[in-house]
Amino acid sequence: MNIEQFKKEAHQMVDWMAEYFESVEKYPVKAKVKPGDIKAQLPKEAPEKGESFETIMEDFERIIMPGMTHWHSPNFYAYFPGNKSRSSVIGEMLTTALGAQCMSWITSPSAAELEETVMEWLRDILGLPKHFTGVIQDTASTATLCAILSARENLTDFSINEHGFSTGDKFTVYSSEHVHSSIDKAVRIAGIGSANLRKVPVDQEFAMIPDELERMIEQDIKDGFKPLCVVSAVGTTSTTAIDPVKAISHIAIKYKLWHHVDAAYAGTALMLPEMRWMAEGVEMADSFVVNPHKWMFTNFDCTAYFVKDTKALINTFSMTPEYLKTAEDQKVNNYRDWGIQLGRRFRALKLWFVIRDFGINGMQEKLRNHLELASWFKDQLMKRPDFEVLAPVHLNLICFRYVPDGEDDLNSLNQKLMDSLNESGKMFLSHTVLNDKYTLRIVFGNTDVERRHVESTWDFIQKTAQQLTEAIT
Amino acid sequence: MNIEQFKKEAHQMVDWMAEYFESVEKYPVKAKVKPGDIKAQLPKEAPEKGESFETIMEDFERIIMPGMTHWHSPNFYAYFPGNKSRSSVIGEMLTTALGAQCMSWITSPSAAELEETVMEWLRDILGLPKHFTGVIQDTASTATLCAILSARENLTDFSINEHGFSTGDKFTVYSSEHVHSSIDKAVRIAGIGSANLRKVPVDQEFAMIPDELERMIEQDIKDGFKPLCVVSAVGTTSTTAIDPVKAISHIAIKYKLWHHVDAAYAGTALMLPEMRWMAEGVEMADSFVVNPHKWMFTNFDCTAYFVKDTKALINTFSMTPEYLKTAEDQKVNNYRDWGIQLGRRFRALKLWFVIRDFGINGMQEKLRNHLELASWFKDQLMKRPDFEVLAPVHLNLICFRYVPDGEDDLNSLNQKLMDSLNESGKMFLSHTVLNDKYTLRIVFGNTDVERRHVESTWDFIQKTAQQLTEAIT
Ligand SMILES: Cc1ncc(COP(=O)(O)O)c(C=O)c1O
Ligand SMILES: Cc1ncc(COP(=O)(O)O)c(C=O)c1O
Repeated sequence: MNIEQFKKEAHQMVDWMAEYFESVEKYPVKAKVKPGDIKAQLPKEAPEKGESFETIMEDFERIIMPGMTHWHSPNFYAYFPGNKSRSSVIGEMLTTALGAQCMSWITSPSAAELEETVMEWLRDILGLPKHFTGVIQDTASTATLCAILSARENLTDFSINEHGFSTGDKFTVYSSEHVHSSIDKAVRIAGIGSANLRKVPVDQEFAMIPDELERMIEQDIKDGFKPLCVVSAVGTTSTTAIDPVKAISHIAIKYKLWHHVDAAYAGTALMLPEMRWMAEGVEMADSFVVNPHKWMFTNFDCTAYFVKDTKALINTFSMTPEYLKTAEDQKVNNYRDWGIQLGRRFRALKLWFVIRDFGINGMQEKLRNHLELASWFKDQLMKRPDFEVLAPVHLNLICFRYVPDGEDDLNSLNQKLMDSLNESGKMFLSHTVLNDKYTLRIVFGNTDVERRHVESTWDFIQKTAQQLTEAIT
Repeated sequence: MNIEQFKKEAHQMVDWMAEYFESVEKYPVKAKVKPGDIKAQLPKEAPEKGESFETIMEDFERIIMPGMTHWHSPNFYAYFPGNKSRSSVIGEMLTTALGAQCMSWITSPSAAELEETVMEWLRDILGLPKHFTGVIQDTASTATLCAILSARENLTDFSINEHGFSTGDKFTVYSSEHVHSSIDKAVRIAGIGSANLRKVPVDQEFAMIPDELERMIEQDIKDGFKPLCVVSAVGTTSTTAIDPVKAISHIAIKYKLWHHVDAAYAGTALMLPEMRWMAEGVEMADSFVVNPHKWMFTNFDCTAYFVKDTKALINTFSMTPEYLKTAEDQKVNNYRDWGIQLGRRFRALKLWFVIRDFGINGMQEKLRNHLELASWFKDQLMKRPDFEVLAPVHLNLICFRYVPDGEDDLNSLNQKLMDSLNESGKMFLSHTVLNDKYTLRIVFGNTDVERRHVESTWDFIQKTAQQLTEAIT
């Protein structure tokens, strides 16, 4: 590595980054390109000879930038945010520079012990019980797969790992109708099958009905199934509905099911004592997942997975071939045994930077601000007879639609509204469908979103909606 | 985000990075700490108030650095390298700054299309067949799990995804005795069970014996098993043994098994026409994995997974809930449907930077240099009657041990030798066991390793070995 060249280019890159952060609002939030536009501009073959940093950056600006959707824009309101912050970006630079591969304690003792510490911090910050132990995973998808696999192995005394599904047992998993697709995926991967994922009906607030859960479990037992696991959501993807964790825990204990809590997005709000009601009963759960990469100012990827029983997790995943054995194996956490991948990035570093840079108070302040912005936006909607809020607003996601007088096909109207808003480049929001109603989802969770963004967004939504009805009539 | 502060801190970080790269050889390669040393110095609780960048960096230097194992040191010879380069580090800075979450085409069209392009480049650079299509995964562990799951679903017409293992079929998977543990892990996760992973015997060169494979398949069929998949290794972890891909392909085709080729490390060498013999017959395989994060100058994590039949992959993993549907779904690659995780980093960027910065020629030159260093080192060992090379050296990994006259317990002697070498801080190598012999593994694959490192390493090994026997006698 030529150090002088590195210094020059990396400093230039920092200037580019700063310039980007400063000007991110100027770009269309959602990329204005058509399928194939970008690829058509890229050479079909790799260069024989090395090229200069300047050439690469020029191509980056000219070809790649126009096709970026800007997740860091304060006007990115779609899905859930994939967040960032100054300290997280700098922490990732350090992770990259060190380039440690953190599969075993010995391959980077500091990484293992910082991960252990930061997970303890996070557990306490979120008010999770002291008997939870955390490990960093890449995504909630992976963490939930770990939960389902641990449940499978724990119930079968680790026999499926060893012998496969040889007994012909039919297992079932439960979650609400509003379950995230990652649970469906995990149920498939684990060999349980989508057909055996029971979707429990929800109440008017889109939260799981515990009585229905119990009824379904009993029916399944009667029908010869073996109930394995229930996944409750603290903050569903469509509406941030809050499943009743406590009631579900009691049922899980009664029928000996593994209880996994998916708080991928909303879990961050547990930092606020006033929001702890969301997770009441979590101390009875077996596992819990929250994504610092969603709402905790930490760059993707960074998922925190907490378990009650580390042995169940480790026994599900550990295996130590000769070439990975080390003298310290009995005394340390070898995190490769705590999940699916062997190789692991040093992700604890950025989380450490974020928590220390913000402090608990700093993070709480940001979150409360986001909740206030959402609450202001909801109030504006409620004041207008031609807008409708379609789900309870527990946090900073608002589900709404436009319901002007005399318009029959509200679904296609709202789809058009969303498309117009997104095509404008001024904002990016996404949608869901609630009780057959096409629903707009807007989330105020970006690190840098401020009142002025929310206000101009609201202005623009009203204007666009009005133009749309005028155009139609 | 306060831009001025970001700029100041990020520029400081770049200076730190450059200083680190320049001085990395001064640190002990393997961290000299005991379990618990690092954690004991970290506060038990997260700070209430935010702290300054200076304080965090001070703690980083004082607490974290002494517990790092330096994967970027040219004297890191353990495992397989987790590589880096100037261009890769800078590419990762950009990935972090953009913070795009690349689950769908629309969430970052450039990311999707650059990934498609860079995977085509890589396919061609490695001489893989044109009918292979690539996708970036985080690790080879994940890619191999994708392969086993695709095999499972393909053979059962996607019925296990749907209904679970309900038919009572008993599936088997095959790989050599020297299989990487990720295959064992995948077989467990997929619900097939370790007991149904058949370890095919190897020849004197530690490569799978195809006749044995065929014999085992036939026996299993007789015994009522359903052979599902064979994993061949192009470069095993212990010795970089090369399984005979062509012969294995023929057997896989004959018995309708999925054939997955694990070239996680050695695959990079296919860039060299003179090394293409290693993968002869690969055009008949169903899937192939290589880790640019191992030997291709690209920071962890970055795995390239190639498949013959994208439909088999996508049908195994795709599912599109309402909130993820987009207008372009039929026309684009939504890479969330090409693997396990929903959320995805923009990993193509660093690979694009690396390939363009080095050029094909630049990468080939580095690889050839690594092979020469290894060949020189092997020659030195061969000249000495008291050292023994324990496996064929196809690439840049040498398996050896110290065999001084009159020493009975060679295993404990060589373990001591390795410990002394590693404790010195001057180098880090790892071990395996071959035919019950404790074996030292040394890999010359670090981006910055030069002749001078290899020479002084060889000097030091000889000296340490001699001291060890003198101390004993
Ligand atoms: C042959 C082989 N396959 C797979 C792997 C797993 O790699 P990863 O950490 O990317 O999962 C390794 C790691 O050393 C390997 O050597
Ligand atoms: C409730 C919930 N669970 C899980 C996930 C999956 O997250 P990841 O991309 O980290 O797998 C999401 C993503 O939006 C989510 O909203």
